[in-house]
Amino acid sequence: MRLDHIAVAVNNLEEAMRFYKETLGLECITVETVEEQGVKVAKLELGNTHIELLEPLGPDTPVGKYLAKKGPGLHHICIGTDNIDSELQKLKHDGVKLIDEKPKIGANGASIAFVHPQSTGGVLLELSQPVDECH
Amino acid sequence: MRLDHIAVAVNNLEEAMRFYKETLGLECITVETVEEQGVKVAKLELGNTHIELLEPLGPDTPVGKYLAKKGPGLHHICIGTDNIDSELQKLKHDGVKLIDEKPKIGANGASIAFVHPQSTGGVLLELSQPVDECH
Repeated sequence: MRLDHIAVAVNNLEEAMRFYKETLGLECITVETVEEQGVKVAKLELGNTHIELLEPLGPDTPVGKYLAKKGPGLHHICIGTDNIDSELQKLKHDGVKLIDEKPKIGANGASIAFVHPQSTGGVLLELSQPVDECH
Repeated sequence: MRLDHIAVAVNNLEEAMRFYKETLGLECITVETVEEQGVKVAKLELGNTHIELLEPLGPDTPVGKYLAKKGPGLHHICIGTDNIDSELQKLKHDGVKLIDEKPKIGANGASIAFVHPQSTGGVLLELSQPVDECH
């Protein structure tokens, strides 16, 4: 297991990029709109992992609702695994509350699933298996 | 730059450990009490980085107050740097709001400083320079 990325919910991507890219000096790898998740995402290189800045496409998106309720800040973390199916089975067997009981397809074709913060000490946790590591 | 760790504020370390260590299978490296920061910290291995679970030593500690206000969840991230002094100078020059204008000594003798969430898109950001990389 490894940390794939940290995701930060922001109201304004351009403003957040001024800090993370221009001031802190992180390299921006991609900026893309992910319609199905209702976000514009900037992915930045952080040496051993990545930071993703998430700007909602509208107030009724999950990240839009999160911002309205909690304000900007750390939104979720994503842990990479090489076998998301067995990982989800194990979590379910252990009584962990899952948001996604089966993986769905995320950015770059990866299989992803979210674990409910109730089971993780308040952390929205994404599991991700890259497409090229599928069994 | 690299991500040194993610820190999660929890009400009960033992309960959080059941998820992160026993269910998710992360290896626990250390559990220690850091009196000056008012926390009991469990450090867990996550492949390319670490997760720290923070349980407050009391309600009047910074993490205790955070939990009372926001509940458990992602508390801060820590970015490792090899020259914290020049990094802080650069941030200050760029108008970034710093919690610590000069580094203080943290766990394991590292030089650490916090950047205010107002300048980072709502993220409490720690900078850390390990003791063995000091210039």
